[in-house]
Amino acid sequence: MTPDSASPEKPVPDALLDALRMVVGGGNVRTGEVVTAADPGWNPDNFGAGIVVAPGSTEEVAAVIRLCRDHQVPVVPQGGRTGLVGGSVSSPGQIVLSLARMNTIERLDPIERVAVVQAGATLEALQMAAAEHRLEPGIDLPSRGSATIGGMVSTNAGGIMAFRNGVMRHRVLGLEAVLADGSILSDLTRVVKTSAGYDLKHLFIGAEGTLGIVTRVVLKLDPLPRATATALFGLPSVGAALETIRLALDTEAGHLRAAEALWQSYIRLAASAHGWSEPDFPLDQPICLLLSLGGANEQALHSEFERLFAEVLDRFPETTGIIASSKQQEIDLWRLREDTDVIYRTHPASPSYDVSVPLSEIDAYVAHILQGLSAIEPDLEPYLFGHLADGNLHIALNRRGPLPERIAGAVETVLYDGLRQRGGSFSAEHGVGSKRIHSLLTTADPTKLEAMARVKATLDGQTIMNPGKVLPQKPQIQPRLRRRNA
Amino acid sequence: MTPDSASPEKPVPDALLDALRMVVGGGNVRTGEVVTAADPGWNPDNFGAGIVVAPGSTEEVAAVIRLCRDHQVPVVPQGGRTGLVGGSVSSPGQIVLSLARMNTIERLDPIERVAVVQAGATLEALQMAAAEHRLEPGIDLPSRGSATIGGMVSTNAGGIMAFRNGVMRHRVLGLEAVLADGSILSDLTRVVKTSAGYDLKHLFIGAEGTLGIVTRVVLKLDPLPRATATALFGLPSVGAALETIRLALDTEAGHLRAAEALWQSYIRLAASAHGWSEPDFPLDQPICLLLSLGGANEQALHSEFERLFAEVLDRFPETTGIIASSKQQEIDLWRLREDTDVIYRTHPASPSYDVSVPLSEIDAYVAHILQGLSAIEPDLEPYLFGHLADGNLHIALNRRGPLPERIAGAVETVLYDGLRQRGGSFSAEHGVGSKRIHSLLTTADPTKLEAMARVKATLDGQTIMNPGKVLPQKPQIQPRLRRRNA
Repeated sequence: MTPDSASPEKPVPDALLDALRMVVGGGNVRTGEVVTAADPGWNPDNFGAGIVVAPGSTEEVAAVIRLCRDHQVPVVPQGGRTGLVGGSVSSPGQIVLSLARMNTIERLDPIERVAVVQAGATLEALQMAAAEHRLEPGIDLPSRGSATIGGMVSTNAGGIMAFRNGVMRHRVLGLEAVLADGSILSDLTRVVKTSAGYDLKHLFIGAEGTLGIVTRVVLKLDPLPRATATALFGLPSVGAALETIRLALDTEAGHLRAAEALWQSYIRLAASAHGWSEPDFPLDQPICLLLSLGGANEQALHSEFERLFAEVLDRFPETTGIIASSKQQEIDLWRLREDTDVIYRTHPASPSYDVSVPLSEIDAYVAHILQGLSAIEPDLEPYLFGHLADGNLHIALNRRGPLPERIAGAVETVLYDGLRQRGGSFSAEHGVGSKRIHSLLTTADPTKLEAMARVKATLDGQTIMNPGKVLPQKPQIQPRLRRRNA
Repeated sequence: MTPDSASPEKPVPDALLDALRMVVGGGNVRTGEVVTAADPGWNPDNFGAGIVVAPGSTEEVAAVIRLCRDHQVPVVPQGGRTGLVGGSVSSPGQIVLSLARMNTIERLDPIERVAVVQAGATLEALQMAAAEHRLEPGIDLPSRGSATIGGMVSTNAGGIMAFRNGVMRHRVLGLEAVLADGSILSDLTRVVKTSAGYDLKHLFIGAEGTLGIVTRVVLKLDPLPRATATALFGLPSVGAALETIRLALDTEAGHLRAAEALWQSYIRLAASAHGWSEPDFPLDQPICLLLSLGGANEQALHSEFERLFAEVLDRFPETTGIIASSKQQEIDLWRLREDTDVIYRTHPASPSYDVSVPLSEIDAYVAHILQGLSAIEPDLEPYLFGHLADGNLHIALNRRGPLPERIAGAVETVLYDGLRQRGGSFSAEHGVGSKRIHSLLTTADPTKLEAMARVKATLDGQTIMNPGKVLPQKPQIQPRLRRRNA
């Protein structure tokens, strides 16, 4: 399934395996049945290499990289293996480098509001550790229990709070990475302001391990509010939902923490799957908005929601709403949004997409894709949901996947064509991995692609680091990239 | 004064000047007296090149760069010319590329809360345009009237609100830049989430024009609060000031917008210069904290300050405080912090520094530098002030500058040695420019320096773009950088 799986690869030499065992300890180089029997995570090819090496320190990661470089064996780093675009798939002739043993939260400083975390720690572990000091990482996503900090940095994860706090890139103060030559780039500042030369850590954030392996991260933390409140509004249009968000950003008490949109077809599916219903909340609105407020006191937040509801109702009389009055009701509402597996249970391997659309363009974009999809096949429809306040829409089709190639291409044309020119992005928060390289090459600015290839060549000239991800393998680059007079 | 001013440069050929006039129009290529008579800004060498070219569009910038590359004439981009570290100084044989004509705010979208701005627009112009929609750029600094958006992006400006909103890097959603080969990198997304390949825009942010010229920027905007309130607290220690900030981050009404520290020697100097005094606020506290809150209603913010003061007083009984009760009082308090020229009026060209220190280290760091400076000369003392909530300290010495070389070196050793290892940065928000290259080379991680040199070489192999800034000119790189086995 990886772009390189067709080309026959040399097997990993035994001499390398022996040397790796010397570095990380025999039990931390796993091969054979131990690997094939392990849970590969979201993608069955994650363990395709059949060899998993788990270093215990940055120095061990560096030694592993030097050995693999000497043997010309590519390295595929892995975190939680819950990426959706094949960024951690591997194939024979490669080794998987697991960060699982490097999962220590090394520092959590309530005065600095900063955490220093090894790459293999999960988001949930960090959230729990930070909560003890009434702090939070300021980033949250449904896969919090499996997603690792290193994986989230490498894919520049986004999630629910990005409209307010930015994406992972905006939470990273410092970073340590092992480069392709085995050297260690150490930039572990614990401050937000640093102008000490090019800020190269941003090259590694979102590079999916293709430029270096992130081993340690310094993250900014925010105060965890004492109280939260949740509400679900049913609204007549995207415009009404955006206006609701605008008003909710301007609350008197507390602050907006989440504004998740669930279009009608998706909330109907989710509600039906979970047997969820509320007498005063018929599921006949075009769009629903799941809102969360955080603040000092729950009663004030409930009053704020009531004030907000009255204000929205005044502008859009069709508006309906529920304010969760118990923890259980809050959980039930969030399950409607977060348990998106309901789609895949109904449509196994449903083709799914992850786009960013500037807020003022969402209405037109949704109309465009509805029309475009139905032009491909009359009953081809999307389940739509996502992070409305930052324009990140998740789109899953009412089809079993994978689609026939002709239809898949037509769907991508409808979804992606012109999106960059509108100010959006064909990949919002899932990355490029191996699955979306073609789409990147088709839609990206040629100057950017060429600069990416140059940066890759200068930092990983031998293509040891996660080859065939983000950018195609070397031989495929040249014909695709526009040459410029040098 | 530039590192390359010693080496004799070829004059800029007339053929190039003629060609440049064809591209940008004769009146937009300025030479001779028109240039020497113009205000060079903060650094007298800013117009050292004697030739200023002012393109009117991105395409004209690209054409200028191609011409200069063909003639091997280096280009020094300039914004507001208020940078403090010589990032825009130029010398004969170079041309200055002024972005002054490209100052249009092209889009200001209240639904998206996004601005698209040409590089030459000032921060103040953007602030005023955004305020019409009750929005703000979320970044603010005293030189708002002169600092341009392109300059602020190129130096990764920080300022007053960075502890909350991040630095310029965190406000940039999209960017357009002209590269050294004259190609235009266009990444004008208007969304916070994009994982469409390496996020190369971060290479240009903070690169001070050495990798490309920023021509257009998409910035995130935030709601402008309806009301603000200002208070000045006098506190017994850095610890008490940090505790005050922690409490202020957790307000019930409104949110903290600024937490500026003024150490005793600085506030005494500023108060004396401005004839400022308050009967209930003796200037005998070790540190003062200028706080700003924003929110929905002024009365609620005043009550919040009263509550905060009571809480701080409870923990630190020595605390004193004033809450500004009029706009004029607010302006007078802010002038104490922002009119730092009082230092330079007393000590012309006072040697000044701009460091970031992790919050938990500030107390020890300040003690260390006080002791270290007085060991150099018994009465050598710093005026200290800065952005306490993000650890950015500004340090100016009670001396006329420049210092004799021996003392200058000893001061840098006291201020910078070990600072990176503590998690801080020798340059917080002023950049490296030409003035701080030596300090960067002395203190930076060698792996980072080498990677920087590689990135520079791959994107600007001919060293056309602002040479001798951030990194030394090519010939000086090799001996300084540790070579690694390739």
